[in-house]
Amino acid sequence: MKKVAVVMGSISDWPTMELTANILDEFGIDYEKHIISAHRMPDQLQQFSKDAITNGYGVIIAGAGGAAHLPGMLAANTTLPVIGVPIESHALHGMDSLLSIVQMPSGVPVATTAIGNAGAKNAALLATEILAVENSQLVLKLNDFRQRQTQEAINSEMQF
Amino acid sequence: MKKVAVVMGSISDWPTMELTANILDEFGIDYEKHIISAHRMPDQLQQFSKDAITNGYGVIIAGAGGAAHLPGMLAANTTLPVIGVPIESHALHGMDSLLSIVQMPSGVPVATTAIGNAGAKNAALLATEILAVENSQLVLKLNDFRQRQTQEAINSEMQF
Amino acid sequence: MKKVAVVMGSISDWPTMELTANILDEFGIDYEKHIISAHRMPDQLQQFSKDAITNGYGVIIAGAGGAAHLPGMLAANTTLPVIGVPIESHALHGMDSLLSIVQMPSGVPVATTAIGNAGAKNAALLATEILAVENSQLVLKLNDFRQRQTQEAINSEMQF
Amino acid sequence: MKKVAVVMGSISDWPTMELTANILDEFGIDYEKHIISAHRMPDQLQQFSKDAITNGYGVIIAGAGGAAHLPGMLAANTTLPVIGVPIESHALHGMDSLLSIVQMPSGVPVATTAIGNAGAKNAALLATEILAVENSQLVLKLNDFRQRQTQEAINSEMQF
Amino acid sequence: MKKVAVVMGSISDWPTMELTANILDEFGIDYEKHIISAHRMPDQLQQFSKDAITNGYGVIIAGAGGAAHLPGMLAANTTLPVIGVPIESHALHGMDSLLSIVQMPSGVPVATTAIGNAGAKNAALLATEILAVENSQLVLKLNDFRQRQTQEAINSEMQF
Amino acid sequence: MKKVAVVMGSISDWPTMELTANILDEFGIDYEKHIISAHRMPDQLQQFSKDAITNGYGVIIAGAGGAAHLPGMLAANTTLPVIGVPIESHALHGMDSLLSIVQMPSGVPVATTAIGNAGAKNAALLATEILAVENSQLVLKLNDFRQRQTQEAINSEMQF
Amino acid sequence: MKKVAVVMGSISDWPTMELTANILDEFGIDYEKHIISAHRMPDQLQQFSKDAITNGYGVIIAGAGGAAHLPGMLAANTTLPVIGVPIESHALHGMDSLLSIVQMPSGVPVATTAIGNAGAKNAALLATEILAVENSQLVLKLNDFRQRQTQEAINSEMQF
Amino acid sequence: MKKVAVVMGSISDWPTMELTANILDEFGIDYEKHIISAHRMPDQLQQFSKDAITNGYGVIIAGAGGAAHLPGMLAANTTLPVIGVPIESHALHGMDSLLSIVQMPSGVPVATTAIGNAGAKNAALLATEILAVENSQLVLKLNDFRQRQTQEAINSEMQF
Repeated sequence: MKKVAVVMGSISDWPTMELTANILDEFGIDYEKHIISAHRMPDQLQQFSKDAITNGYGVIIAGAGGAAHLPGMLAANTTLPVIGVPIESHALHGMDSLLSIVQMPSGVPVATTAIGNAGAKNAALLATEILAVENSQLVLKLNDFRQRQTQEAINSEMQF
Repeated sequence: MKKVAVVMGSISDWPTMELTANILDEFGIDYEKHIISAHRMPDQLQQFSKDAITNGYGVIIAGAGGAAHLPGMLAANTTLPVIGVPIESHALHGMDSLLSIVQMPSGVPVATTAIGNAGAKNAALLATEILAVENSQLVLKLNDFRQRQTQEAINSEMQF
Repeated sequence: MKKVAVVMGSISDWPTMELTANILDEFGIDYEKHIISAHRMPDQLQQFSKDAITNGYGVIIAGAGGAAHLPGMLAANTTLPVIGVPIESHALHGMDSLLSIVQMPSGVPVATTAIGNAGAKNAALLATEILAVENSQLVLKLNDFRQRQTQEAINSEMQF
Repeated sequence: MKKVAVVMGSISDWPTMELTANILDEFGIDYEKHIISAHRMPDQLQQFSKDAITNGYGVIIAGAGGAAHLPGMLAANTTLPVIGVPIESHALHGMDSLLSIVQMPSGVPVATTAIGNAGAKNAALLATEILAVENSQLVLKLNDFRQRQTQEAINSEMQF
Repeated sequence: MKKVAVVMGSISDWPTMELTANILDEFGIDYEKHIISAHRMPDQLQQFSKDAITNGYGVIIAGAGGAAHLPGMLAANTTLPVIGVPIESHALHGMDSLLSIVQMPSGVPVATTAIGNAGAKNAALLATEILAVENSQLVLKLNDFRQRQTQEAINSEMQF
Repeated sequence: MKKVAVVMGSISDWPTMELTANILDEFGIDYEKHIISAHRMPDQLQQFSKDAITNGYGVIIAGAGGAAHLPGMLAANTTLPVIGVPIESHALHGMDSLLSIVQMPSGVPVATTAIGNAGAKNAALLATEILAVENSQLVLKLNDFRQRQTQEAINSEMQF
Repeated sequence: MKKVAVVMGSISDWPTMELTANILDEFGIDYEKHIISAHRMPDQLQQFSKDAITNGYGVIIAGAGGAAHLPGMLAANTTLPVIGVPIESHALHGMDSLLSIVQMPSGVPVATTAIGNAGAKNAALLATEILAVENSQLVLKLNDFRQRQTQEAINSEMQF
Repeated sequence: MKKVAVVMGSISDWPTMELTANILDEFGIDYEKHIISAHRMPDQLQQFSKDAITNGYGVIIAGAGGAAHLPGMLAANTTLPVIGVPIESHALHGMDSLLSIVQMPSGVPVATTAIGNAGAKNAALLATEILAVENSQLVLKLNDFRQRQTQEAINSEMQF
């Protein structure tokens, strides 16, 4: 199974993106985590995304805040599915991150998730779903996850 | 290769979602288009999404506007990757559609694209990228698409 | 008198929705509270809303945050009046919850109240007003409530 | 069966609120339509809402745009359920209308629907649902309406 | 010289509106402060604003938050200049208050100031400026105030 | 009676500000209209506002769009009441104009009205109300205006 | 004198960016115009910005809409001043373009101008001002421009 | 080399604008810091900006919040490049500051940076870039800065 890249622009995004990593761990998905700043490491960004398929990646998850160019620029250099996580920014609470990531022009898609923690977790689930399209083992794991999730919700209803 | 579902809540969304279909046609991706209203056809929605894997779908693309519940409810009933396209709504120009689609709670992801036409086109490209993860033929097609796209941009620069 | 359902997507919504319950208690309205997640318990949601009339409910109050699909999906499956309470979400402070709940397409209404605590309290009052349409005892109670409320405001003016 | 009041601040709101009237006609609900401007007819507003129960109304629907005070001020003077329809305003496309109507303080609820035409139609459906709480004939009519609505959606899917 | 009314919907608005009162004190402007809730005391609101000229008021300052109907409804019942102060609301930080106050329909103006503390202070200054139109003593006081204000700014520049 | 200044930044604002002039004409208020651009005529702005009291003005009305600095800078140079009209801008529909005008820091107030035409008309009414504080003739005219306005609304209700 | 680069992501941005070119022509500033799409021509973007100083550019002006990555990515690869013009986008009217351009992280600045036409014109003026810092001839031209601009405003006032 | 002016409206803006000063210190750029309030010191503003070229300034950086008129009014009185930093305001988190600064009409540009701290730092870098257009020593320093910045990002990637 191909591995997932969990990329962020700065170590300060890790508290959010760690939630992505935790879910990938939970599913036993092989992943690598990288700090690649779109604005401070444009060469590395270019190189990383151009080599991503060759290097065995199947999906790229990128978290970014503010004028969040990282997911879009990764997507510009690869045909791998790129998932963008809008990090909650300070002043505008992630509305800038969301619009900068989701409003991509036609031709280069970024699969955008929710602002902040929920988006980080869902990015991992979405990557798993993508890898599961041709992997029935992973479908079973996702079904298990969903069933446990549903059961927990039902339990909280029953104890309510 | 698995097929793609192009789902929308109403025939009025077709002028947008037709752009999705056109790109899928261009890539030779097998797809079915369906009108399934989250609010007027909740049973059909439930059934459709529960059977989607069995019925041979690999990816679901769902366009919806306003309180756009369709993508999220499809995602609630399947572990297939669901791509949500925020249709440009009348009063709020798709900002309501965008937030209703992208702000999913953790546990059930929706891969959101841009508001309106660009998002509809990119949903098809994203679906193709997802199917290409384990399909090298499709990777070649995507590369061709990107190269043509780049060449057209270079041409418009050269004639500028 | 028919009873009221107070539904929420997660136990984390209870601090807000408890305010709904408190007001219903104050009016002696019979109610049941339930955790039904639109995205994690879609079958239960479907069942609950389809059976709601038969089970003696007269009004459904549903609190939800973010891509708040719960009120709209309940409304899709019942002709009971559904009141939606936009829970204050983290990043966007409930603006996403509000738009996801209020911007319903024509055909399936949701009666939306204010974001957060005021909306939770008013949802209970609105449910009481609805039940009072054919219940003159309840009209008297509402009048009492309003008069006390007015008197308290007058008192705070007089002591100001 | 009690009648419905369809109130608006100005004749210019009629093209929107006529959609409310049409649906009420369709359900055979008795209604009266009134122009009562919160800012130009405050005495009439006060009188109308205080007398509304005595005058046989069961629900009040009020459409208003901009600093849309009409629904909230009607609600301040009656314990009838008041439904507020945010008229699409010129500059801000109804976002001002929506916030002015929905953000009511605790103690005086307004049941808010979507901005513009969808909201106007849904206000009529919501009023019908409210009157149906103690009227099983109306429940049947609502079920019919929903079934026809679903059938039309299914038909458009089948012809798609 | 006519007196000023400082009106607010609830005692909870006093920490903001106290800043209005302090500035009026500083200018020696006669004022009365009142709690008049638009939604809980509509009769008192009506009476107060209708009698405001007779009772010797020259200007009304009204602070309100959320669906802030107080300033507009006061203005609907008097031809006195009404100044509206948008109180900073919890979820939407006063954007709802601002739009509900400022977006008045033509025919009934409300002079709106900034959200929160700055707006509360400026409401007092604006009232003073209004009273100063025919009061040259007050013009002198305003000039003094401005000069001191300018001098303080210059001092902070000089000590910078 | 003191006269009113109707100031705008550009001739392109006249279609909006003409509505201000029309209402002032209707009330027989003496006014002068001026084009004074904050950014292209800062010296003239300074001079105009410093001399405004001496030149017999009682109120200044200023319309401006976008980064609408005109009302605030006029207010910085005079203690006359300054009324700001947010002109509806192209891209952001006057939201930029509104925030630039209304969010003045404490110390220098601007009385802000609604975006666009309603705001332009209300600016004239507000100026009239201000001049009426010490002018009982003008109060009578305002009462007449309000009564006619109310009567017209009642008439449209009666013919409805 | 160094030349200016006028860069845009697509030929569709030319109607806006032509206004930039016109002003540069008016000042006799040497410039080149280029179509360089951030997402479709990332290699060319990289190359262009890395070589920009060597190629004799003194300032780069970049217009972009939606998830407008062009100005920020150019800035990431050069220490030349980069001016970003937010093109007015379809659904969100340039608010997405503005936030994507202006909310750059610390370390890589983009000098952002207004949304749309005004921003395009001002980008040219800003570039001219930057080149004028060490060019007194250009300062004279700018003074001339400003004086003519002021005179035209004064003329429109005089003919008003 | 010409010096930079770091201007702010109030001492309360210093915690943000100090970050500007720190970067200028780091580059050895000569600068002066000033408190000049647009609304409380309009004469000083006028004088300062008119004399700025004569006084040896090459660039002006101005931080302002709310109805942030300072950068635009400085720009109205000089042909020097003016950089505007939107200070994060209390209620609206700097969205008002941003729009008031960036939405300048054509003819008088302000180079706007991000809201808050990132914008303050980038204003200094942008000023340095502007001064570097004709100063190859400064280009070297900027290259060093960028390389260190990139290296730090690479280091944090390597230690990740």
